[in-house]
Amino acid sequence: MNTADLGLPVAVPSTALFTDHYELTMVQAALRGGTADRRSVFEVFTRRLPEGRRYGVVAGTGRVLDAVANFRFEPEILEFLREREVVDEPTLKWLADYRFRGDISGYPEGEVYFPGSPVMRVEGTFAECVLLETVVLSILNHDSAVAAAASRMAVAARGRPLIEMGARRTHELSAVAAARAAYVGGFSTTSDLAAGFRYGIPTVGTSAHAFTLLHDTERDAFTAQVESMGSGTTLLVDTYDVAEAVRTAVEVAGPGLGAVRIDSGDLLLLAHRVRQQLDGLGARDTRIIVTSDLDEYAIASLAAAPVDAYGVGTQLVTGSGHPTASMVYKLVARADSCDPGAPLRPVAKKSMGGKLSVGGVKWAARRPDADGVAEAEVVGTGEVPAELADHLLTVDLVRGGEIVARERLEAARERHLRARDGLPLSATQLSRGEPVLPTEYTVG
Amino acid sequence: MNTADLGLPVAVPSTALFTDHYELTMVQAALRGGTADRRSVFEVFTRRLPEGRRYGVVAGTGRVLDAVANFRFEPEILEFLREREVVDEPTLKWLADYRFRGDISGYPEGEVYFPGSPVMRVEGTFAECVLLETVVLSILNHDSAVAAAASRMAVAARGRPLIEMGARRTHELSAVAAARAAYVGGFSTTSDLAAGFRYGIPTVGTSAHAFTLLHDTERDAFTAQVESMGSGTTLLVDTYDVAEAVRTAVEVAGPGLGAVRIDSGDLLLLAHRVRQQLDGLGARDTRIIVTSDLDEYAIASLAAAPVDAYGVGTQLVTGSGHPTASMVYKLVARADSCDPGAPLRPVAKKSMGGKLSVGGVKWAARRPDADGVAEAEVVGTGEVPAELADHLLTVDLVRGGEIVARERLEAARERHLRARDGLPLSATQLSRGEPVLPTEYTVG
Repeated sequence: MNTADLGLPVAVPSTALFTDHYELTMVQAALRGGTADRRSVFEVFTRRLPEGRRYGVVAGTGRVLDAVANFRFEPEILEFLREREVVDEPTLKWLADYRFRGDISGYPEGEVYFPGSPVMRVEGTFAECVLLETVVLSILNHDSAVAAAASRMAVAARGRPLIEMGARRTHELSAVAAARAAYVGGFSTTSDLAAGFRYGIPTVGTSAHAFTLLHDTERDAFTAQVESMGSGTTLLVDTYDVAEAVRTAVEVAGPGLGAVRIDSGDLLLLAHRVRQQLDGLGARDTRIIVTSDLDEYAIASLAAAPVDAYGVGTQLVTGSGHPTASMVYKLVARADSCDPGAPLRPVAKKSMGGKLSVGGVKWAARRPDADGVAEAEVVGTGEVPAELADHLLTVDLVRGGEIVARERLEAARERHLRARDGLPLSATQLSRGEPVLPTEYTVG
Repeated sequence: MNTADLGLPVAVPSTALFTDHYELTMVQAALRGGTADRRSVFEVFTRRLPEGRRYGVVAGTGRVLDAVANFRFEPEILEFLREREVVDEPTLKWLADYRFRGDISGYPEGEVYFPGSPVMRVEGTFAECVLLETVVLSILNHDSAVAAAASRMAVAARGRPLIEMGARRTHELSAVAAARAAYVGGFSTTSDLAAGFRYGIPTVGTSAHAFTLLHDTERDAFTAQVESMGSGTTLLVDTYDVAEAVRTAVEVAGPGLGAVRIDSGDLLLLAHRVRQQLDGLGARDTRIIVTSDLDEYAIASLAAAPVDAYGVGTQLVTGSGHPTASMVYKLVARADSCDPGAPLRPVAKKSMGGKLSVGGVKWAARRPDADGVAEAEVVGTGEVPAELADHLLTVDLVRGGEIVARERLEAARERHLRARDGLPLSATQLSRGEPVLPTEYTVG
């Protein structure tokens, strides 16, 4: 439902209804009460990482920019809101003219984050900012959850290519965003054609068990595939007996066979056996791809196995146990009047249940130690200490309603690699632990 | 990306790219090898329920029908496939003419299912059926996971209304489908406006903490909300001090205040205190809505508390620990030739790792005991035993490419209630256990 980061010609329906009912009723009440135009700052942050995780990964920023640009209340939407009596006529009139004219800044896509990191800041009138809450959180919470899982898997794969193939395990459009987030997190390719179409991510795939079963013999299936796709293709070798399939595959395709894929069984054992068999058959360059319910731990356990690429589905698109980040969108400061020049006052909920929020407009910096390795995430209000001025994390994304930070998806992917490389070594341990950087608050 | 079940005027882009790359390359190889037109039967089923779950809930069927109807390779899609060299020219030509002309049958939406239940059957030529694999699984796996969680929550809520409010915790379009699946599973309303627009699900919502924080005092906020939305509104009472907020709320709105919402803290304790306070203030009809990170267990723990409605977010849209069903789409039978009259032959993968599949075209029935309570899910091939003829579960959904089973979403919702009511009592225990019905295979 969002245009491609690369400007591909995808139809972009309005994103205005990806919104909770209460955002609109709040606008109505604020319009009527005369507070709708109070200058306000909302902050996106998370109070905690998923249990045991060392870092989070910001993903979805490019999609947020698209969503904001296309957040318009078209006539059919207004008619729906009128018929259902969601809001009153003055509010409908205000919505009809709505476009976001404020400012958005935040951590750039691919950057890592920690508890309390001000991942995104949305600034404008209360009414124009509050409307964006739901769609901003939907995108960041989903995409960041997948990117974090992808990043861990990429660490575990130690440079071997990762193929995203989880489309069938998640909502069909969630799948497209998941492929995008996986790419940011370090995956190389995807099976999802829509992700190729929208985001230019390389797509891959050859055949499933059904293709083998369609034929009278496995040999017939391999022959049909090689005749159609050439010997560089990947043959699936675990429909019946793996050893027999590998023998047949090399007989049919020759020693130039591109790859074999194993989708079940003891992958560690099978990878060794198949490698030995392929080498014995002279197919030394034939690669081995494994694809059976992998997660970062299974990938790590195959580090010493002769595996050339991993295909990952379910665990990737479901965030490897954590299908959503827990980012929230909170009002942290607002003016006392609708005068555009009125100063901002920090605000925060004070209540039971540990949901304490830190008010105020914040900056964030990642402080390096003497060796240039990050040692703390510093979040502050007021003036930025001079020694942190070169380490600020936040960039402008939207100024006065105009997007100022479009970038290629590769830029986010490369940024993530750099950001991860800048963390202490323990960041890439898969074992459970505390966030690899402490978050320090300083009040200026 | 799918039209509404109710025929609302939603634009419907093609669903053809919600497809794994390998589905298309298999079509290419089968076209070239002369096997593409072999009559084939694919079956959707799951080998297991999520750990500890007693039953699954079929959801997404209506969306599958939309996806099949809109599975067309438009010119811009064909151009993408050509440029990326996904498939060759003869295949592109075949895809340009593609529309599904086969048959689909399955468990109707809202029905419960068990391991091995043939939830859906897709029959036609190999090529026309294999293409649908990814999108069919995306929809059923996502929607069924959410509906199963919703059903458990509805059981736990014992008739009290449930509000779906998880949009911000999942992909923005996943959220719309989740609201739909939650409605099938027993939720009453949603916060998601797009779900109201597309599916006619009632939407609700009033205000967030940001609205209170926007104002100089809580009283100002409540006054603005009540003036705009009337005293029947729901006031959020946990921004500062709950007791003070409740007092202010009744002062501002009068004893006719519609409801108060509590979003943090010890909900059991607070609900009792707030009820007592409201009653003491004469607001005996003011309802209490709770909305803080609820799942089915938290809901059950509030059964004895004076709570009038539950709002559920994260745990609902992420399937309460199981964000995807594990349904697969397997070739279970196919002809030996492309002769349309050639008999179907059962096929199944035989391999390591416990991924054994049962081949053959199956029927399914739910056998009742003498009291009319379901006692087994019977799945068979061949002739249906006479005593099961009245208990068959599968219905026609598509015949010769035409949808024959459109229905209102309410029909699925009502069906789910009936299906759940027909299960043994232990089905609705929240504790972990085995599927409440055993699956029996009979070979005819």
